[in-house]
Formats: sequence, C-alpha cells, structure tokens
Amino acid sequence: MQNTNRKTSTARKNAVATPHVICMVGLPARGKTYIAKKLARYLNWIGINTRVFNVGEYRRQATTAYRNHEFFRPENADAMALRTAVADAALKDTLEYLDREGDVAIFDATNTTRERRQIIYDTVVVKNQFKCLFLESICDNPQLIETNIIDVKVHSPDYDNMDKEKALSDFLQRIEHYNEVYVPMAEEHESHLSFMKVVNAGEKLIINRHEGNLQSRIVYWLMNIHITPRTIYLTRHGESMNNTVGKIGGDPDLSPKGSQYAAKLSEFINNQNIPGMRVWTSWLKRTIQTAAAIDAPQERWKALNEIDAGSCEELTYEEIADKFPEEFAARDLNKLTYRYPGGESYEDLVARLEPVIMELERQGNVVLIAHQAILRGILAYFMEKPLTELPYINVPLHTLIKITPVAYGCEVEHIKFPVDAVDTHRPRPSSPTHKRLRISSETAYELSD
Amino acid sequence: MQNTNRKTSTARKNAVATPHVICMVGLPARGKTYIAKKLARYLNWIGINTRVFNVGEYRRQATTAYRNHEFFRPENADAMALRTAVADAALKDTLEYLDREGDVAIFDATNTTRERRQIIYDTVVVKNQFKCLFLESICDNPQLIETNIIDVKVHSPDYDNMDKEKALSDFLQRIEHYNEVYVPMAEEHESHLSFMKVVNAGEKLIINRHEGNLQSRIVYWLMNIHITPRTIYLTRHGESMNNTVGKIGGDPDLSPKGSQYAAKLSEFINNQNIPGMRVWTSWLKRTIQTAAAIDAPQERWKALNEIDAGSCEELTYEEIADKFPEEFAARDLNKLTYRYPGGESYEDLVARLEPVIMELERQGNVVLIAHQAILRGILAYFMEKPLTELPYINVPLHTLIKITPVAYGCEVEHIKFPVDAVDTHRPRPSSPTHKRLRISSETAYELSD
Ligand SMILES: Nc1ncnc2c1ncn2[C@@H]1O[C@H](COP(=O)(O)OP(=O)(O)OP(=O)(O)O)[C@@H](O)[C@H]1O
Ligand SMILES: Nc1ncnc2c1ncn2[C@@H]1O[C@H](COP(=O)(O)OP(=O)(O)OP(=O)(O)O)[C@@H](O)[C@H]1O
Ligand SMILES: [Mg+2]
Ligand SMILES: [Mg+2]
Repeated sequence: MQNTNRKTSTARKNAVATPHVICMVGLPARGKTYIAKKLARYLNWIGINTRVFNVGEYRRQATTAYRNHEFFRPENADAMALRTAVADAALKDTLEYLDREGDVAIFDATNTTRERRQIIYDTVVVKNQFKCLFLESICDNPQLIETNIIDVKVHSPDYDNMDKEKALSDFLQRIEHYNEVYVPMAEEHESHLSFMKVVNAGEKLIINRHEGNLQSRIVYWLMNIHITPRTIYLTRHGESMNNTVGKIGGDPDLSPKGSQYAAKLSEFINNQNIPGMRVWTSWLKRTIQTAAAIDAPQERWKALNEIDAGSCEELTYEEIADKFPEEFAARDLNKLTYRYPGGESYEDLVARLEPVIMELERQGNVVLIAHQAILRGILAYFMEKPLTELPYINVPLHTLIKITPVAYGCEVEHIKFPVDAVDTHRPRPSSPTHKRLRISSETAYELSD
Repeated sequence: MQNTNRKTSTARKNAVATPHVICMVGLPARGKTYIAKKLARYLNWIGINTRVFNVGEYRRQATTAYRNHEFFRPENADAMALRTAVADAALKDTLEYLDREGDVAIFDATNTTRERRQIIYDTVVVKNQFKCLFLESICDNPQLIETNIIDVKVHSPDYDNMDKEKALSDFLQRIEHYNEVYVPMAEEHESHLSFMKVVNAGEKLIINRHEGNLQSRIVYWLMNIHITPRTIYLTRHGESMNNTVGKIGGDPDLSPKGSQYAAKLSEFINNQNIPGMRVWTSWLKRTIQTAAAIDAPQERWKALNEIDAGSCEELTYEEIADKFPEEFAARDLNKLTYRYPGGESYEDLVARLEPVIMELERQGNVVLIAHQAILRGILAYFMEKPLTELPYINVPLHTLIKITPVAYGCEVEHIKFPVDAVDTHRPRPSSPTHKRLRISSETAYELSD
C-alpha cells in the first residue's frame, strides 16, 4: 500500500511506522465518542494525522427511521441489516483514509460482539496490514452513566422532538438491547488482539499485547486524562518594556501598563477563590511579575518560555528588516515549520509543550501565564485548531482566557481587562509574496510570536 | 512527617508530592530485582531520589544458614521466623529512608501473600501516610524462567560452592515452596490497593487505582522497556573545526581528522552487519557528517543537540575569560545546576534527554552520534552514575562506546580508533576556587561540555 500524501513529522515517524485503526468497544454512554474525539485532538496536535469515523453519524445520514429504542433490538432484522451495512461503509472509509493520508483512524462504534471484532481484525490487519488497537470502555457506575446520558445523549439528533425524561428512559432501553449481545473483551478468548480496557473512567486499565510507541503514548495519555469538572485560565504576561519599544524576545520587565494588568488580574483571580488552584508561569520575568500577587502555589516551567527567536532575539524591527529580509519572507510562507536562525519553529514549540499539556490534563484548576506563541500552541490543543492555523490564533494582551470542558470539547471565553496595551496580532497574509518585505511596525511585533 | 533533607528538582516536584513505597510482588526469578534496580536507575536519573531495599540481601547478612531450598519450606518454622524478622527490618529501613531523604523506596521481596501485602499497606499508608504502589511480575513461560535462573540466580552468593545444574534444580524447588503460599494480586480481593501487574515481561499489563504523575510515568516506562538482547553504540562526532581552534558550540564542519574518524567509524559499523540497526544523530552538521557513510536508516533528533552555552556559544576561550569570569567560577561550584546565561544546565539537559532514553529503551540496536555533554547524560543513565558525577564523565573524542545489557545492569566497552584528536576532558576540580579563573586552553573546551 502506498501512502504518498502522508506528511512525516518527527512525532509521526517515531510513533506510527504503520497506520493504525483504533477501534472503540463498549455499550452506549460509556464515553467512547468522548475518548475518540479527545484522542484525535491530541494526536493531531502532536502531528499525527487522525480522524474519527463515527458509525452513529453514518446511520443518521442513511436513515431518519429512528423512532425509539426498538430500532436497536437485536431481533429487528431490517434495522440490523441497515446497521451492518452502515458499519461496513464506515469501515471502508476508515481504511481509505489510512490508505490516502491518515496515520490513525478511530473507528467509533459499539463493536460489542466478538464476531464483529474478529471481522474488523481480519479486514484491518490480515487483509490490509495496518495495525489495529481495540480500546474498550467499561463502566458499571449507574450514576456516571445517567450523567453521561443527560450531558450528551438527550441532545442527540435522535431525540430532537422528545423531552428529556423520555429521552433518558429510551436511551436506557437502547443500552439494554446492546447489553443482550455484549461480550466484553477478555484475554482468554481474544488474546491475539492488541487491546486496552478502561474501567470506570480509569480506575482500572488492562493492556494486552501493546506494540510500539504510539500505543504506549496512548496509555500514558489515558492515565492522565480525567473527567472531573475544572477550569483552566490562560493569559499572556502584562505588556512588557520590549513590547512598548518594538523589540522581540529577551527577558524584559513589565511596563507600567503591564503592572496595572498584573494587579487587576490578581485581584480578579484572588476573588474567585478557586479550590486547589495552581499558578504556572514561564521562567521569564514578565510572566513571574504578572503572577506575583496571585495568592496560590506557583510553579515555573522552562517549557513555557516564549518561542526562541534565535538571532532575532532582542532586535528591533528595523534591525530585523535590515539583517534578515529573506528570513522574514520565508516565515510568511510557512509559519508552522519556519525555524528562526538558531531558534525554534512553531512545530518545535508543540514538541516542547507536550509535557505541559499532559500535566494540564492531569491537574485540576490551573492559571497559566505565558507568552503569545506558547498560548497559541496550548489554545490550538483545546480549541482543536489544525496545526496550520495555530500560528495565527489571536491571543490579545491583557485578556484572560477561560477554558471549561463541556460535552466533547471545551468552551472558550475571553475576559478583557480595561488596561490598554499595544496590539501584537497580525492576521495571516492573504497571499504571501516578497512584497511583504515592507515591514510595518505592526508586523514587527509579530516576529516574536 | 518532616522531609527536610529532600532536594526539590522540578521532576521531583511534579512527580512525587508524597513519598512512595513501590512494593514488588512475585515468585522468585520473575525479574523483580531486575525491574527494581532498573526503575531506581531511571528515577534517580530524572532527579527522583530512589533506593532499592532488597530483603534477600538482608537475609544473607543476617544468616549464612542457607544450605538448600529446605530453608524456604513454609513449614520450616525457624527459618520462617528469621525471614519475617529480616523483612520487617528491611521495611523499617525503607520507611526511615523516606522519612529522611528519599522520594521513592523500592521494597524488593516476594510479598506473595495477601496478609503480607496488607501489613505493608497498613504500615506504609495507614500508619505513615506515604503512598504505596504494588508492582507484581507474573511469568508462566518456563523457558524464560529457566533463562532467568541461569543468567542470574546460579551466580547468587547462596550458590557459591554449588555447580550450575544443582543450583538450577535447587532454585526450581525454592520456587515451588513459594508457590505453595503464593496468591497473585486480584481486583476482587485487593481492589483498595494501587497495583500494577506485568504479565510475561509486558505481554499484558493491569493497572488498578493508579494515582498521580509518578505512577503514570512508571507505566509508560514499563511499556517501553524490554529484555530482548541488543547493543547500543554511542559516540561523539569526529573532531570539529571549532574543536581545533578552541571555540565552543556553534555548528561547525568536521576537521580533516574528524572526517578520518567518520570514515573509520562507518567502516567498522558497516562491517558488523548489525540487524535492524538505526542511526541517530543531532541536528548539527558535525554529527550528521560523522554518520553520513553509515549504511542504515538515519534519524535526526533536536534533543541530541549539544548543551546550549547561551552567550558563550561560538566564543574562544580568551573571549570567555574576558567576558564572563564570574560565570566560569560559578560553573565550577555546581556544574550540574549551573545554567549558561541564556543557555542550559546539565539538569536541563537530562530533562530534554528523557524522551531519547525512553525511545532507546524501546528500540533494538542503535548507533547514537552526539556531543560530549549529551553523551555524559546518556552514559549516566546506563552506568548508574549519580547526577553529581554526570558532568565529569569522561567521553573522549574518536572513541566508540559499546553498551550491552547484562544481568541487572550494562557492560560498557570503549573502542578507541587510532585517529588523533584534541583532548576535551577536564577532571572535576579538587577544590574549586576563584584561582581556577586562570583558564588554560584545556579547560576552555570544557565550557561547552
Ligand atoms: N472512560 C469513561 N467512562 C465513562 N464515561 C466517560 C468516560 N470518558 C468520558 N466519559 C463521559 O462520557 C460522556 C460522553 O459519552 P459518549 O457520547 O462518549 O458515549 P458513547 O460511548 O460514545 O455512547 P454511544 O454508543 O451512544 O455513542 C461524557 O459526559 C464524558 O464525561
Ligand atoms: N517482567 C519480567 N518477567 C520475567 N523475567 C524478567 C522480567 N523482567 C526482567 N526479567 C528477567 O529476570 C532476570 C532477573 O531475575 P531477578 O533476579 O530480577 O528475579 P527476582 O524476581 O528478583 O527473583 P528473587 O525472588 O529470587 O529475588 C533477568 O534475566 C531479566 O532478564
Ligand atoms: Mg458515541
Ligand atoms: Mg530478587
């Protein structure tokens, strides 16, 4: 099989020598889609091309026949034929995606029987020589299941015209139909399969025949994520002395306006009384000064330091235009992979931010104070932005960004503080050419981003 | 409990908020001591103070009474009393170590009964409020067990005067005595304990109630290690143009002598015909040029780039002595934590080498071509050097270092190639004072190390 369109980033090369199908297994409302979407977000962010194929969506496109749980009775022959056809179509697309460009395809369906799993294994591994990892979520906590149904299931298009109580009870019956045929994965019978079982949202994990770097990274990630509600606050440092004079990088102090922001921010955060909150900053003075008056345990991360602009560090925009005109044009052409001479690219940045994201996943409430490029990297993860858009995410100064996990993703809220600051954002150039070499003062700030 | 002597590195702070006992579980010859020692090596290297407490060693110090397997019969009341006393003494030392200075203590004994494990849990968690993770190794592959016995057990002091065949058969009977009372860990009965089970050297893993960053890191590490025999070759790049003129850092080409080394090295490696071998270099020209003629798949790692000397990069020794006299003195005082202005410390280096070590563990045969400080970091891991000695490890130019895993550790062999090069090693100063500011040309090279 040829995979000519596949990009080879370093993360990809180390992690996925062979394309992978990750095949979800489990009853409804066990978090399969939640895990699938979140894992895809993580893998795409570290540079591994990943897509989720959700059989439920295929079914809803194929038929609007869903009236109630009766549809999922094993004895309902018509519906069963349709469900099988739809699952096969989704699997076909899954394989085509891997053939064409994908590194990892997540096949999101219940796959509750051994026969079904064997068919998938035969198709994916024996016939197509891809790798296949089964990822089963088991949950026997009725409260958690009910919460899951109320959080996401009653909002499904299946229940568009149904009230919540009725939808909940219909969904519980739907689960019962699946339960009639469900056989959890077990080493005794499926020892030839690579699989991971997650029990009660991570209380227990079982890993069978794991293989390769990608799979160990997935387990590590699975061990770090959790579903306890919490809030993450992100902000750039207050305006720095270098911001005011158009110099990039370096380790400057806050400007008077930057100090004003630090005071307002600390007051705001301290008033929230957020339980168990931690404050993270970079090693640079402008973030430490911004955090100084926040009343909570503080940690300094070198990995949160601003992108290293190499030879362009601490230069003014006139000096840069003078010294590195070609560099500037090259950066516009591919800002994601462009690496400052002797410095870093946005791609390098994502690699060094990975442990930060892992630790953010593990933690509860965190206030993270860092820099423009760093926050772009972190926001791209939470907002599921493609890597190509990452370098253009708008992260204004003197603005607190509040991230709250909801359903399958995150809610992002900007809280603007009324303290003036220079604007350091430059939108993506519409058609980058050498004309862009006429550097304006606005674009100069951008070089450090 | 007070832990005043405990150092707080960043790795430590993130990973072990509370001191941990890791309690091994399993029949003899299941790799408990192997895992314990190797895990301690890894944790110490990432800055977590770890020590192994091996009950077998306590027993041998307490008595020379071992004649044969009869000693381990459950009915042997005298021996049993002694064994319990000895285990208690070891556990006492374990707790004292954590109280005094340790972050992690690995309690290496069979702990084959539920009663024994409950006593340990009560002592460690309930009474002392440390955390306790049980780590069980299960193996039902008779060949692997016999290999293990022949590899390490017949060399035990217990069998000083016994021939191999007899020792093997005695050890197998010893295992049988343990087997009479052995109860593997099971969620049904010990669901309140945090535990990990490793089955058949990693074919299957079970993780129950994992908690915190340290435990997920241990699982990730467990998923990456393997016991398939292989060889790792390490070498610095050939002599560079900067080496010859006393400049540090930068991205110079090889000198003519450096190119000679590259040719000899490649010839040597190519002649070995090492199966599945991979070549890793840094991003810098001198390592890529050194590897160029090696006939194997090549990978470039930014994490293998030489320590960043910040403002001292590309300076000659005269310039450094001139510009940064205090810096030079400060570095002598604590070379491990000293950070170049705008650059890195050896401690920073270890943090960025961690993914390299993880991937090295996972791989088979690898030839790794890098730089003096980088190889010090990697060698410290394999040779189990304390971090304080890491910055002084001798890594001569034009020398290939061959690392072969044996028993519980590694054999390290230096293969010197007959190509002259400048000497870049400077031994640890016996009493660092400001007198050392008289920089000689020999010490100047050292600044980049
Ligand atoms: N490991 C887990 N175990 C149980 N619930 C989880 C787990 N992970 C996430 N959740 C929760 O599951 C809910 C989402 O359920 P989701 O839609 O993913 O279920 P599903 O298994 O895909 O169901 P269906 O088969 O109907 O598609 C979220 O509220 C999320 O908090
Ligand atoms: N997970 C594993 N399962 C089985 N064998 C292993 C495992 N990990 C390492 N080994 C092998 O185990 C051997 C070492 O055995 P080791 O001395 O550690 O056994 P032990 O369990 O400590 O026995 P004892 O109870 O007698 O101290 C090594 O040869 C090593 O290759
Ligand atoms: Mg779903
Ligand atoms: Mg042992």
